[in-house]
Formats: sequence, C-alpha cells, structure tokens
Amino acid sequence: MVVQFVGTKNIADLVASVGLETLLLKLVKYLEQDFSRWEDFDKTPRIAAHAPNGVIELMPASDHDLYAFKFVNGHPENPLHGLQTVTAFGVLANMHTGYPEFLSEMTISTALRTAATSAMAAKYLARKDARTMAMIGLGAQSEFQATAFKTVLGIRHLQVFDIDPEAGAKFSRNLENSGFVITHAPSAEEAVLGADIITTATADKKLATILSDNMVGAGVHLNAVGGDCPGKTELHRDILLKSDIFVEFPPQTRIEGEIQQLDKNYPVTELWQVITGQKTGRSSDKQITLFDSVGFAIEDFSTLRFLRDLVQGTEFYSEIDLIAEPKDPRDLFGLLMKGAAPARERLAETA
Amino acid sequence: MVVQFVGTKNIADLVASVGLETLLLKLVKYLEQDFSRWEDFDKTPRIAAHAPNGVIELMPASDHDLYAFKFVNGHPENPLHGLQTVTAFGVLANMHTGYPEFLSEMTISTALRTAATSAMAAKYLARKDARTMAMIGLGAQSEFQATAFKTVLGIRHLQVFDIDPEAGAKFSRNLENSGFVITHAPSAEEAVLGADIITTATADKKLATILSDNMVGAGVHLNAVGGDCPGKTELHRDILLKSDIFVEFPPQTRIEGEIQQLDKNYPVTELWQVITGQKTGRSSDKQITLFDSVGFAIEDFSTLRFLRDLVQGTEFYSEIDLIAEPKDPRDLFGLLMKGAAPARERLAETA
Repeated sequence: MVVQFVGTKNIADLVASVGLETLLLKLVKYLEQDFSRWEDFDKTPRIAAHAPNGVIELMPASDHDLYAFKFVNGHPENPLHGLQTVTAFGVLANMHTGYPEFLSEMTISTALRTAATSAMAAKYLARKDARTMAMIGLGAQSEFQATAFKTVLGIRHLQVFDIDPEAGAKFSRNLENSGFVITHAPSAEEAVLGADIITTATADKKLATILSDNMVGAGVHLNAVGGDCPGKTELHRDILLKSDIFVEFPPQTRIEGEIQQLDKNYPVTELWQVITGQKTGRSSDKQITLFDSVGFAIEDFSTLRFLRDLVQGTEFYSEIDLIAEPKDPRDLFGLLMKGAAPARERLAETA
Repeated sequence: MVVQFVGTKNIADLVASVGLETLLLKLVKYLEQDFSRWEDFDKTPRIAAHAPNGVIELMPASDHDLYAFKFVNGHPENPLHGLQTVTAFGVLANMHTGYPEFLSEMTISTALRTAATSAMAAKYLARKDARTMAMIGLGAQSEFQATAFKTVLGIRHLQVFDIDPEAGAKFSRNLENSGFVITHAPSAEEAVLGADIITTATADKKLATILSDNMVGAGVHLNAVGGDCPGKTELHRDILLKSDIFVEFPPQTRIEGEIQQLDKNYPVTELWQVITGQKTGRSSDKQITLFDSVGFAIEDFSTLRFLRDLVQGTEFYSEIDLIAEPKDPRDLFGLLMKGAAPARERLAETA
C-alpha cells in the first residue's frame, strides 16, 4: 500500500510551478472552507513532550472523512547550532479505513499556512483602507507574512525592524523585485509609526514586550504571530486590554497566546465565527483589533488537504511503501515470509 | 535534512537477512532494557480519534534523549473490504534538537513487538517447565506469538483453535517446517486442555467470553492479547478474580484491557517491576498468572530504537527529504526561492 509523499524538494518545485502568491491565495480558500465548518471537527489541544531546551508536539484534527496530524518541534536554541527552531511534517489518513494516505514535509508548509491564516484573519479584521504594515521580527516567518498580506490585502508598504541587522538584510534580499516598498526603521517604535497593520513575529522564548501600550494607535490591526507557548508573549498587557481580541481555539490560546496574560474568562471572539458571520469582526475605524495567533491543528488539516489535492496528477510527489498490504488481511506473517524469500535468495547469491 | 525510512519491503528483507527468531530475541532485549528503566519515560495514555467504524490513535513516549510516537488505527470491519484491521507507522526524533530522524512502517513491526512483549512477560510469569501452549484466535498476530514463544521459552507444542477453519489452515501453512507440533482442536474448550500457557488473540470488538472460568486450571499462564479497547474483552470476569494480574501501564489497561471488567482499584502488578525484581512474578506452581496485554507506547519506542540501530550500515533503509535544511536557519524563504529557481528553468525549458 503506497502512501503519497511530498518532500522539501517537491514543495519548492510546487511553489515554483504554481507561484507563491497563487498558492497562498488557494490555501486561504481551503482555510476559509474549514474555518466555515469549524463545528464538524474533532478538536484536541496539542499533546506536548517537554525537553529542557524545547518541546515536541503532536497536533491532531479530524472530521467525518479525514484525519490529520502534524509533528512539530520548537527548540529556540537550535539556530545557535545551525538548526531551525521549528521543523514539522504531517499526515492525512482516511477515517473510514484508518489507513494513512498522504505524508508531507511541513516545515515550509507551516510557514505557508501561518502566513495564510494571518492574512485571512486580517481580511476580516483590518481596515479596508489599510496600506502600510509594520513588521517587528524578520526571521523565518517574515517574508511569508509579507507575501501573504500583499497577495490577500494588497499591502505593498512595509516598515520593518529586527534587533539583528543581518535579518533585515536577508529580508530585503529575499523580497527584492517582489513589488514591495520596504523601509528599515532603527527601532520598533519608529517601525510602527503610522502603520495600519502591525505584525509581530519574534522568537524569544520569554515574556517580552515588543510593543508597549503607547505604540498602538486607534484603528490598527495587530497580527501577533510570535507568542505561541506558555511563557512566550510579545505584547504589553495594556495593549490587550484596549483591543478586541480574536483567537483560533480558546482552550489552546489561553495557554499559549498573548491572552495567557489575562484572566481565564476574559472575553475573546473565535475567528471562525467572524468568518461564518455569526460574530462581528471590525465594527469601526477607531477600533484596535488583535489576532492572537498561535497556530491550530485545523489549519494543518486544511494545508495537508490542500497539498494533497494540489499534487494529484502532477510530478510533485513520490510514493513510499509505508503500509503493508497482505493479500489476505489476516495473513501478515505470510506476507513477511513471501517478501523474505527473494531477499534470502539474493543473500545466497551474494554469499 | 534526510530522515531514514524503513518501508515494508525493507522490513521483510531485514527479517529474511537477520532471521525472524534472532530478530525477536534481540527485540526482547531492547524491550527488557526499556522496561528496566520505566521511570525514565514520559508516559501518556494514547490519544484517540473515534470514527463510527474504528479509531485512529497516536501513542507518544519519550526519555531524555529520544522521542517516539506511533500512528495506529483499529477498524474491525476492514477485513470485509480486503483491508487490515490494524496498520501503523512510527517516528523517532531527537529530544535535544526536536528533529525527526527515523521513520518506519509499523504494521509488521507492531506484530513483532506485541509477540516479543508477550514472550518477555511469559519468561517471567509462566512456569519454567511450560511446554504446551493453547492458542485461541489464529489471525494476523498468531504466527508471531507462536514464533516468539518458541524462541524465548522453547514452546513447540501448540493446541490451536479458531472459529474460522481457513484461519487454522493459514496458520499451519505459515508454520510448516518451523519445528512446531500443531494440534487443531475442534473447540476452544478442547484446545486449552492440559496447556501450560493459553494465548487468546481474537479480534471481535465486543465483550466476548473466549475463555470461561472452568477452562483455566492451576499453574496456567494466560497471555490475553486480543482485548485492547473499551468494550473489547476475551476472558470471563471470574478468571480475572482467581488470577494474579500483570499489566503494562495501569491507567491505560484499566480502560482498554480485560481489567476494565473489574473495580478501578483492583490490585494489579506492573510488569516492569517484575523485570527489575521489585515485585514477584510467579510465586508458586499452582498460581494462575495473567498478562493483560494492551500494547503500550514504550514498546513502540523500544521497537523503533531497535530497528534504527539494526539498519545502520545496511541496505535496509532509504532516505527521504522530510525536513527542510536551509543554510541559514532563519532563511526558510531563501531556501524555497533557491529550490524554486531550477524548477522555474525546467518549466521554461519544457514550455
């Protein structure tokens, strides 16, 4: 029984073939479809195994037909050793048979889905006339965020800052000839001046204050991407208190998101209810909206479903023999012995 | 970043190269090593997603250095459609970096580990002079159980029964020339007559009574493999009451095992404590011992660790590009664009 496998080379080739912007637009559609049927899903907070210097998590989500899970780690000290903070892969399985059917790298795909989710949220929460985005933190996620906001919301003016000038140089290099006007600010305070949207995507695993209260003016949409585990936040608590807060899955966000700084019962709105029209998103041009993004398993479900559909009939996947397929399902031993025979002969030949 | 992958063909070739009996003996050693350091592990009951006709589960376990999880389904109606009831695969990751390093099929490997665990338990719990094993249920697991008990305990006389005569024919066919003396009994009652060990491995998802009280005599070791989820048991409650019961991980076994029929506080002994010598296994030749096997994540951890060690330096694995490896860990976008360039050229050429 073969399982379709999309590796990192396949993803890079797929992006080149489809085009990053087209791909992000299509992915937003899949996300919107699944956010619109939120109640169909079996939802579980992620299951974590903690190491002294990081965490490994499994994130399952399923509906009546499909099961998805993602394996993802978070090891903030990895870049000191030339490794990535976050790597991931995911699997789709058939709920009716239980068979896994599709395996994909998700290090790159998670970057795509996180950016697509942020842009989807901003479509419902940012002012319609938003033109300028400030970006604080120019790490691995930053160019994906910029590209998704350009594609989905038409944002072309970026005011950016990172404490590491090399990150800024990398950001500009990666996005040259992409149609952006990029202003490098000397501080976070100056980067956010006059911005309609503020994206924070820093990586420190601590209670940081990337943005303080006086930096956020009326009408701004805040897209807080970096705070995503207990003890890791980016915004001053006072900002939260003057914002209307939108989240993915409250039981998870209250533990991992910016709102871990607030009371357990502090009112928040679930993003899916804004997308279905059950709740209001932005209600005035003066309102401060905050998408407290932590990343939820249904977004990975959508991404795997999207990738599976996208690669059918293309050359962008291979097949691996992950699942045994005995002719008689009760005869696993016979399959093993039958498979063994040719190998025995081969060994005899080479002996 | 490549991940080592062991597929179903690799496993069949590996078994042929090493030999099934040698492989089972080595696997028992890995299991004993990990059961002996039980307290080093981060243990979690499995995480289940329920479908109307089955279940999909994730089973994680980790120590200070290694993280393992298994994906496994259980769909009892699958054989009606030519599919297996249970399929599985597993992954080993590095706890220090969070990177996945090893992916393996585990449909066949789970059959190996379940049999090896049963034989390991029986080594500590069955009478030393045990020579005859009764087997009720001759499905996919049966030949693995028989082979493990032969290899580890020297059992050569089998008295077997299955309600389906074809299962019995398959069992004898698979084990011909394996050194067994196999007696096919016309009923479960007759199969167990005079047996020193009784293995039950039936597949019905219901509260069944494969063995009733009067069928189990003094000194017998019961190896109950088939009952492994809520609502699925094989033994009459009265058998449990006159046995000393040994389990893998009590919080899981009380939900899934034969002891789901008993009070939540009914005394059971953890197998790992027998292996370390902290608790007594068999204390007399008259005692009835019961290993209430449900399968625990640490056994899959041991199996993945064993397979990873075994294939190093051999031809029995391949490599897949599951994890992106940017030169600069903060530059995932650059990797994507770089990977994209050759594909763009290729597309231009073929256009």
